[in-house]
Amino acid sequence: MTAPLKAIAKSDIADLMHQTGLRARTAASVLALAPARQKDDALAAAAEQIRARTGDILAANARDLAEAKASNATAAFLDRLALDEKRVNAMAAGLAVVRGLPDPIGSVTERWQRPNGMMIERVRVPLGVIGIIYESRPNVTADAAALCLKAGNAAILRGGSESYRSNAAIHAALLVGLRNAGLPESAIELVPTRERSAVGMMLAGLDGAIDVIVPRGGKSLVARVQQEARVPVFAHLEGICHVYVDKTAKLDMAKAIVLNAKMRRTGVCGAAETLLVDAAAASSHLCPLVTMLLDAGCEVRGDEGTRASDARVKPASEADWSTEYLDAVISAKVVTGLDAAIAHIERYGSHHTDAIVTEDAAAAEKFLREVDSAIVLHNASTQFADGGEFGFGAEIGIATGRFHARGPVGVDQLTSFKYRVRGSGQTRP
Amino acid sequence: MTAPLKAIAKSDIADLMHQTGLRARTAASVLALAPARQKDDALAAAAEQIRARTGDILAANARDLAEAKASNATAAFLDRLALDEKRVNAMAAGLAVVRGLPDPIGSVTERWQRPNGMMIERVRVPLGVIGIIYESRPNVTADAAALCLKAGNAAILRGGSESYRSNAAIHAALLVGLRNAGLPESAIELVPTRERSAVGMMLAGLDGAIDVIVPRGGKSLVARVQQEARVPVFAHLEGICHVYVDKTAKLDMAKAIVLNAKMRRTGVCGAAETLLVDAAAASSHLCPLVTMLLDAGCEVRGDEGTRASDARVKPASEADWSTEYLDAVISAKVVTGLDAAIAHIERYGSHHTDAIVTEDAAAAEKFLREVDSAIVLHNASTQFADGGEFGFGAEIGIATGRFHARGPVGVDQLTSFKYRVRGSGQTRP
Repeated sequence: MTAPLKAIAKSDIADLMHQTGLRARTAASVLALAPARQKDDALAAAAEQIRARTGDILAANARDLAEAKASNATAAFLDRLALDEKRVNAMAAGLAVVRGLPDPIGSVTERWQRPNGMMIERVRVPLGVIGIIYESRPNVTADAAALCLKAGNAAILRGGSESYRSNAAIHAALLVGLRNAGLPESAIELVPTRERSAVGMMLAGLDGAIDVIVPRGGKSLVARVQQEARVPVFAHLEGICHVYVDKTAKLDMAKAIVLNAKMRRTGVCGAAETLLVDAAAASSHLCPLVTMLLDAGCEVRGDEGTRASDARVKPASEADWSTEYLDAVISAKVVTGLDAAIAHIERYGSHHTDAIVTEDAAAAEKFLREVDSAIVLHNASTQFADGGEFGFGAEIGIATGRFHARGPVGVDQLTSFKYRVRGSGQTRP
Repeated sequence: MTAPLKAIAKSDIADLMHQTGLRARTAASVLALAPARQKDDALAAAAEQIRARTGDILAANARDLAEAKASNATAAFLDRLALDEKRVNAMAAGLAVVRGLPDPIGSVTERWQRPNGMMIERVRVPLGVIGIIYESRPNVTADAAALCLKAGNAAILRGGSESYRSNAAIHAALLVGLRNAGLPESAIELVPTRERSAVGMMLAGLDGAIDVIVPRGGKSLVARVQQEARVPVFAHLEGICHVYVDKTAKLDMAKAIVLNAKMRRTGVCGAAETLLVDAAAASSHLCPLVTMLLDAGCEVRGDEGTRASDARVKPASEADWSTEYLDAVISAKVVTGLDAAIAHIERYGSHHTDAIVTEDAAAAEKFLREVDSAIVLHNASTQFADGGEFGFGAEIGIATGRFHARGPVGVDQLTSFKYRVRGSGQTRP
């Protein structure tokens, strides 16, 4: 079931990738016009196949795991790579969720009439071919392919070479889904080689076959994709998210939000990395917040003001303000009011997600207006930075670029649009 | 008033451009938060200044023209470069039009509530810094700068070296507008050198200072920008626009639309370049359409079927189907029905603007759905491909890319967005 893993000559890889791109482009033009029902049928059949093939998928995964162990992979790496029945079921359930979303294609997002009687509509159409470059988590194979398919796009998947067999087994299930629904199998292409040069070819756009790249993985992968890609990229390099506790914040609310923003899950991009406390609230709010974090097992690295609040606070270095810990560590600083908080976020943040806790409506509006991040929140946790929590059903990632998609990237964000104009013989004067 | 034109060393140019980028980036953060009133005041003052400085602008233009004449520029080139009182007035009027548009910044394009009570809004914010690279028409200096300013963006303008003095004179008027409104002058930077290397630096993104490039000019300029730019580009390379006359088309309507689409103005990107006629309508529609075009002074290059309709039709070569004439020339072909018309457009078109003339609603819907162009029209002229005609007030150009902006690019398309979330203490479970 899985493709052979033998080495291939470089020129052969270029040809292999070129052909992959051509097939995906052809499939994309079929998918673009496929009715919602057909795409949903493919997703339903794929989910069924993934469940039915749990044994095959786990066997392929076991071989990937054995190889990774033999090459001394870390425990964290092995955990990301490992599948079990629960994770396979979750993949199938994910396909069902995407299937249940409304089809974005053909939906009219704006409609207006011109004085000459012409009706103009702005209508969603697919983007085309989406390249997904990811690392060890095999579930991305199913998750990303499903979102692309739902939005009428073809996908070219390039997973980590360590998860190649697992990805191939999952991919085989997806292909049955496409076949059963009468859609071209090339709608979901899995790069047929583990050779690293394939990534460079994708970043160059595969001779015009790839319209956009979505990287899924760690910072070094995303950085490489952002630097080298010659096509648009939907991504965020890091999430240096802030919670600013204003002087009028209710202490209980601030505690709940700060604890959730930092500690609910520390490894997600929406986790808070820096706590900013208004100097005017330092005497009332700072100590309870810092003590709460420390008691919850979070290391706190603070400026002088913060260190005065609890002896356990470690000194923060300049580098801490621009560090994404993705761990139970937070940097903390006392700032002289809202303007200083905003200035700190603009200087050290990553334009991802930032929150203010305040009872002062004017302060909240100023923060929401002036902080230049994809997501800005008032009195809510930064961990809501998620397509599911936004109501998008599922997301392929979060983007911090300013073009096309920003914030959570769901099926709607995986579309383009065109203008349909309906006239009755109008000519331009 | 105009900057000196002496040669500058290459390293100095790099530094000059770097500083230009830094200034624009700083200005962009001020502009992003500038109230509508302040931007409008700047536009009003700039319009007034342009009118008041007509003499200066025409004097600078006369020097540009003299230099261009001395270097044997073509008559068409000189016409594009030349300003007169009417053209200067039109520039000032254009600023007033942009001033009158609603400010897109801060407008909420979507709003929804989550089951946990959080309110989420998607709100327009500026893109940042827009680089405009244009050729000989000096009016782009005012037109493009105004659109960028209205949408809260800083602009870095790089006009043709032949129009340098004219651009500088217009730019000086714009700066007075900014100054009078209390906005930073760096909101509109004119590249302070005629050296060609400046263009390459802009295409590389000026060390991160430029967010998007808009080229305004001929095909070779756009091609270079599309090939070399490392930042997003809003552009179209060419407009190979089609009118397909279906068998059920009313002949009078078809004649009016074809004549307008081709001949209203032949040099615009929305001008039709190919006429496709349904074979089932060849006997009734082909001859009247072809004769009408020939009689209107349009050269017709046709396939065999078209040549049979009038002896004046010249034979079309394969290259004709993918040629943008921008002149009183049209290629014409008889196609066997709607599917063949769509297939022709997909193969030879440029995904810009295409129209169907038909009384058959199902055929119209199929055409509007299946033709993958930025603008598709039913029973209306392709020359409506224009931001003004769409009701956008003004446009900076037309884009055929699939990302962010597609079709006419007006002030709304020169914005990005962010999500504002308003909660009451929500944390994520």
